[in-house]
Amino acid sequence: MVNETQPTCCASPSSKSDGGSSSGSEGSKESSRCSTPVLDGDRHERLRDKMRRRQDSGDKWFSLEFFPPRTANAAVNLISRFDRMGAGGPLFIDVTWHPAGDPGSDKETSSMIIANTAVNYCGLETILHMTCCNQTKEDITGHLQKAKRLGLKNIMALRGDPSGEEWEEEVGGFNYAVDLVKHIRSEFDDYFDICVAGYPTGHPEAESYEADLRHLKQKVFAGADFIITQLFFRSETFLKFMKDCQAIGITCPIIPGIFPIQGYHSLRQLVKLSKLEVPQEIKDVIEPIKDNDAAIRNYGVELAVSMCRELLDSGVVHGLHFYTLNREVATTEVLKRLGIWKEDPRRPLPWAVSAHPKRRVEDVRPIFWASRPKSYIYRTQEWDDFPNGRWGNSSSPAFGELKDYYLFYLKSKSPREELLKMWGEELTSEESVFEVFTCYITGEPNKNGHKVTCMPWNDDPLATETNLLKEQLEKVNRRGILTINSQPNINGKPSTDPIVGWGPSGGYVFQKAYLEFFTSSEIVTALLKVLKKYELRVNYHIVNVKGQNITNAPDLQPNAVTWGIFPGREIIQPTVVDPVSFLSWKDEAFALWIEQWAKLYEEESPSRMIIQYIYDNYYLVNLVDNDFPLENCLWQVLDDTFELLN
Amino acid sequence: MVNETQPTCCASPSSKSDGGSSSGSEGSKESSRCSTPVLDGDRHERLRDKMRRRQDSGDKWFSLEFFPPRTANAAVNLISRFDRMGAGGPLFIDVTWHPAGDPGSDKETSSMIIANTAVNYCGLETILHMTCCNQTKEDITGHLQKAKRLGLKNIMALRGDPSGEEWEEEVGGFNYAVDLVKHIRSEFDDYFDICVAGYPTGHPEAESYEADLRHLKQKVFAGADFIITQLFFRSETFLKFMKDCQAIGITCPIIPGIFPIQGYHSLRQLVKLSKLEVPQEIKDVIEPIKDNDAAIRNYGVELAVSMCRELLDSGVVHGLHFYTLNREVATTEVLKRLGIWKEDPRRPLPWAVSAHPKRRVEDVRPIFWASRPKSYIYRTQEWDDFPNGRWGNSSSPAFGELKDYYLFYLKSKSPREELLKMWGEELTSEESVFEVFTCYITGEPNKNGHKVTCMPWNDDPLATETNLLKEQLEKVNRRGILTINSQPNINGKPSTDPIVGWGPSGGYVFQKAYLEFFTSSEIVTALLKVLKKYELRVNYHIVNVKGQNITNAPDLQPNAVTWGIFPGREIIQPTVVDPVSFLSWKDEAFALWIEQWAKLYEEESPSRMIIQYIYDNYYLVNLVDNDFPLENCLWQVLDDTFELLN
Repeated sequence: MVNETQPTCCASPSSKSDGGSSSGSEGSKESSRCSTPVLDGDRHERLRDKMRRRQDSGDKWFSLEFFPPRTANAAVNLISRFDRMGAGGPLFIDVTWHPAGDPGSDKETSSMIIANTAVNYCGLETILHMTCCNQTKEDITGHLQKAKRLGLKNIMALRGDPSGEEWEEEVGGFNYAVDLVKHIRSEFDDYFDICVAGYPTGHPEAESYEADLRHLKQKVFAGADFIITQLFFRSETFLKFMKDCQAIGITCPIIPGIFPIQGYHSLRQLVKLSKLEVPQEIKDVIEPIKDNDAAIRNYGVELAVSMCRELLDSGVVHGLHFYTLNREVATTEVLKRLGIWKEDPRRPLPWAVSAHPKRRVEDVRPIFWASRPKSYIYRTQEWDDFPNGRWGNSSSPAFGELKDYYLFYLKSKSPREELLKMWGEELTSEESVFEVFTCYITGEPNKNGHKVTCMPWNDDPLATETNLLKEQLEKVNRRGILTINSQPNINGKPSTDPIVGWGPSGGYVFQKAYLEFFTSSEIVTALLKVLKKYELRVNYHIVNVKGQNITNAPDLQPNAVTWGIFPGREIIQPTVVDPVSFLSWKDEAFALWIEQWAKLYEEESPSRMIIQYIYDNYYLVNLVDNDFPLENCLWQVLDDTFELLN
Repeated sequence: MVNETQPTCCASPSSKSDGGSSSGSEGSKESSRCSTPVLDGDRHERLRDKMRRRQDSGDKWFSLEFFPPRTANAAVNLISRFDRMGAGGPLFIDVTWHPAGDPGSDKETSSMIIANTAVNYCGLETILHMTCCNQTKEDITGHLQKAKRLGLKNIMALRGDPSGEEWEEEVGGFNYAVDLVKHIRSEFDDYFDICVAGYPTGHPEAESYEADLRHLKQKVFAGADFIITQLFFRSETFLKFMKDCQAIGITCPIIPGIFPIQGYHSLRQLVKLSKLEVPQEIKDVIEPIKDNDAAIRNYGVELAVSMCRELLDSGVVHGLHFYTLNREVATTEVLKRLGIWKEDPRRPLPWAVSAHPKRRVEDVRPIFWASRPKSYIYRTQEWDDFPNGRWGNSSSPAFGELKDYYLFYLKSKSPREELLKMWGEELTSEESVFEVFTCYITGEPNKNGHKVTCMPWNDDPLATETNLLKEQLEKVNRRGILTINSQPNINGKPSTDPIVGWGPSGGYVFQKAYLEFFTSSEIVTALLKVLKKYELRVNYHIVNVKGQNITNAPDLQPNAVTWGIFPGREIIQPTVVDPVSFLSWKDEAFALWIEQWAKLYEEESPSRMIIQYIYDNYYLVNLVDNDFPLENCLWQVLDDTFELLN
C-alpha cells in the first residue's frame, strides 16, 4: 500500500533507497531531490544498472561502436552521425582507442575528445576504449583521470596490439587487459564501469579456447562489469561461447558483437585484422557479387538480421552490440528490421540534455543558443555547477571566450561551395541578404535554384515548431527583419504534444512568444517608438556589435519563456531570456556573420563588404510577448513598425 | 533611451547601481538578481532611503509607536494588533525600551522580543528603542548585537530616565543619547539606521530651548539619520521647532510625534511624565467631559486630525508618527480621516512576507502552514538561508522541535471560555466534533447559538478564497472529512484578481486544487481504493500520528500548487506540497488537537477522551489534483469514497 505507483522520476542513489520506502520523518530528511523531469528514469543510473534493468524488464537494446576519424571535417560529420543514430535510442555508444592517433590528446580527432563530444555534446552514454600495452602506468592513470574529468564513466579495458612483430611481456608493465582492469579498480575504486572483450572462438594468440576462457574469467573477477564479444558469423558460435562462460562461473552480461557485412573490402580487412575465418557459405555468396556494393550490403543486412533474430529468440541475449565502421545505413536498417530502433519523440526537456554527471541538475538554459546547443555546452563547460531550478545567480558565471576554437563552434557542417550556392556566390545589396533569410524560412529555392537548408545561426533546416510561424516570418524577413530564433506562444498544451511537448506525460507546457532578429538601425528607431505602446506587455533587448544595449527589462532578471507544470513536481522553466547571457550570445551571433558568411568571399570584395556592413551597423533584437494567453502581439509590433516607416 | 521604464523589481544595492545602466557584458557580470516579486519596490531599502523616496514622491506616510506588554496574553493581543494596524501601511513601527521589563531578554514580553516579532513574524519595518543611562558599554553592545542577529535594522537612541532622583553623570559611561549614537556608529559602522528624539519645546531638563537644539545637533552630527519629536499640542510648536533646527544646520528628516488624546487619565499621566503643559483651550474642553471616555476620544480625534492637516498642509511635513499607547481605534480613525491609512489588497506573494534581511530571498513555502504563517516562521527561524526559487534542496533543513514554546505557537488568541463555547462545553461523540468543523465552514451558530470563528488550525475566520469551496466543504465535514486547509484550482487568473491574485500586475496566477483533512481509518481505507482510479491525476500523502505514511508521490519531490507568471521574470512558485515537511507539519497538526482542544477539558473526561481518540486513530490526508485546467476532481474522489462506504 505504501508508494503504490512506481516513482516516475530520476532515481539518484539516495532517492532510490528512500523513495519507495514507508518513511518516518527521520529517514526522509536525507532524501535527495532532483528537479529535471526524466522520461525513462535511467539518466542517473550507471551503465551496468541500466543494463540490468533492461534485462529484468525484457526490453531489448542495442549499442553502437565507432572509431575516431582522421580529419576535423570527418569529426564534424561523425558528430552529426552520433546525433542521428543517437535518435534510435542506443543504450550506449563506444569509441575505440586509436594508439596511432594520439588517443588521449586534446586533438579534435582523438579518441578522448570524440568520446567527450559523444557524452557531453550529444548526450550519449559512452564507453571509451583504452589499451594498455606499451604504455606506462602514469600515462594510463593520466588518461583515466582525464576521462573522469570529462565526465566519462565507462572504460573498455583492452590489451591492444603489441607494436613490434614479436611482442614480449614487460616486467611490471601492463601486459594484459586484466592488468588494466586491476589498475582501474585499484586507482579509481568503483568509479568506472568496466567492459572487457570476449572472443567467441578464442583469442587468436591464446594457447587454446579454454585457456582464453580462463583469461576472460580473470578479467571479470578482477572487476569487469560486462563483456562485449568480438564479431562472429553464426549465432551458434556465440551461444556456445556464452554457455561455456557460464559453465566456468562467468555471470556478468555478455553482449554479442554484430558486424553487418557492408562491403567486400571492409570484410577482408576486418577478417585479416581479427584473424577470423569467414564461413564458406558466406564466402560462396559474396565472391560472385564482390564488385556490387549494394548487393553485398543487402546480403549483409539479411545475414545480420537473421543472426540477431536467432540470438534474441534464444532468450539469453538481451542486447546487441554493432560494429558500425562509422557507417549508418546498414546498421540502422538491421535495427529497424529487428524493431529495436526506437525513435522517441518525447523530450525530457525542450533542449538536448547533456550526459555529463556535472550537468545532471541542469534544467534551465538561455533561449539564445536554442539552435546551437553544442556551442552553449562548449561555452559553459568550465562552469563548476549548474543552476538548480533557477538560472539566475547572484553572480553570473562567465561564458567561454569567443576566440576559443572548437569543432562545431563557429564552423558549419557544409563545405564552402555548398554554402556559396545557398547564401549567394555574389551579394549585390543588403536585400540579397534578406532573400537568403527568406528562402531559408520558406524552403523555396533561391534565384539560382538552390535550397537554403542552413544558416550561420542554424546548421539544420527550420524546426517543426518554427514552421508554425512560417508565413509571418517570411513576410518580415523580406523586409529586413532577419530572424534567427523564434517560438510561438503556448497556453497549456499537453506535455505529450508531438511538436511543442516535453517532459513526463500528464503535464502541461507553456511558452511566451519569442522573436530574435538582426535589423538595421533605421528599423530599430521605428521599432522603439512602436514598443512604447506595448511597454508592459513586451520586453525587449536591443544591442549592436559594440555592446550598446537598449532594454526595458526590470533590472537584470531573466524572463522565463518556456515552462511546464507536471503531476507531483515543482515547476520546470527550462528556457529563459537572460539579459546577462544575451550579451555573451551577442558576440557569438555577430561573429557568425563574419566567420561563416563574410569569409566565404575575397577580402575587399563587394559581397564581403555587404556582410561587414551588416555586422558593423545592424542591431540584434529580441522580443518577448509576456501575455501568453492572448494572441501573439509581436507580429502586430512589427506591422506597426513597418507602417511607421512608410 | 536606455532602460526606459523604471525597474519594477526590488532594488538591492548592487542592482540599483547596475540595473539601470547601459551595460556592456562586463559591468553586468556582478549583477544581483532577486526572485521575489515586489510590489512597492522598497522592501530591501533602508528605512532612511524609504523615507527619502516617499518625501521625493510627495507620498505622505505614517508610523506607529507601541510599548511592550506586561503579560503573555497581552503580547498575543499586541501581535494581532500589529497585523491589523500593519494592514494600513505604516512606514515603520517602533517598540519602546522598557528598562524595568528586562528589555533585552528572551522573555516573550521584552522590548527585544516584541520588536523581533514585529519584524520577523508580522513583516513590519521596525525601530527598537534603546536607552543608555545606567548601563555598561558591554550590555549595550550585547543588546545591539542581539538586535542585529534578530534582523532588526533600526535603533532609536535615547538617554532614558535616570534611575535615582538626583542623577549624576557617570565618568566614561553613557550619559547622553549622543554617547549611544557614537557608540553604535563606532561599533556597528553604518549597519543600523539611527533615530533620535527631538523636543519641540525643549527637553525639560535642558538649560534652555537653544541649548537643547544644540544637543540635538550633536546627536545628528554624531550619526543619527532622522528625528522623531516628543508630542506637542499645536502645529505651530512643531513648525517653529523645525525651522529652528534647520536654522542651526539640522537637515535630516524631522518627524512630528502625534498623540491623539484618548482619555482623561492617560493624558494626565503622559503630561506628568513628559513635563509638558496642556494648553488652556484644550483643558477647557476636556475638564467638563472628563468622565465621558467616548466624548474625550472623539475630541482627541478631531484635534489630532486638524493638527495633522495643518502639518501636512505646511508642505514641510511628509510623515506623521503616532503615539498609539497600544490602542487601535483613535489612531486608526485619525489616519483614515487623513486619508493616509492605505489598505493595499495586493500581496507580493500569497503568504505574508517576513521583514528579516535573511528571509529576503524566501519565495516558496510548504502549503501546510498557510493558516499558521507565524508558526512556520518560528519553526524555520534557525535556517541559515532560504531556498532561492526552489523549495527542494539536496538535504532538507530541519524544522524546529515542537516542544519549543512560543507565544503564538500552540496557543489561541481566544480565552478558554470562548473556545469552550465555540468547540463545545461537552463532546458526546466524534459526530459532535464533525459539527464544530461544519459550523466553522458554514459560519452558522452551533446548537448553543455560538459562532465558530476559529479552529485549532486556524485562528481566523475562513479565508475569502476558501469561501469559494464552502458548499462542498460543508458537505464533506458533516460526514467526517475534517478539513483544515484547501484551495481551489485556478487556471491563469490575472495577478490583480482581488481574491486569488498576488505579485506584480500584468501577471497570471495558477493553482492546483488542494485539500487537507483529518479522517478516520475507515474512510482512509475506502479513499485509497477510490484513489487507484485517479492514480496519475491525484497525488496524496496520508499519515497518522505515529508517522505511518502512505503516498503515491514520485520520490520525495515537492509538488508546486501555486505559481505565477509575470512579465520579464522567472516563474515564481510560492507554495508547494512538500513530502518531507509534511511530516514535520503532521506533528504540529496532531499536537493542536491535544494542546488547544483536548486540554480544554478535564483529564479522563469523555470530551477529552473523544479528542484523544481522534488524535490516536485518525489520519491526516492531503490531496492534490494535478489537472489544474480541468474541473477539480477532489470532490468526486470524496463522493466516490462515501459511495463505496455506503
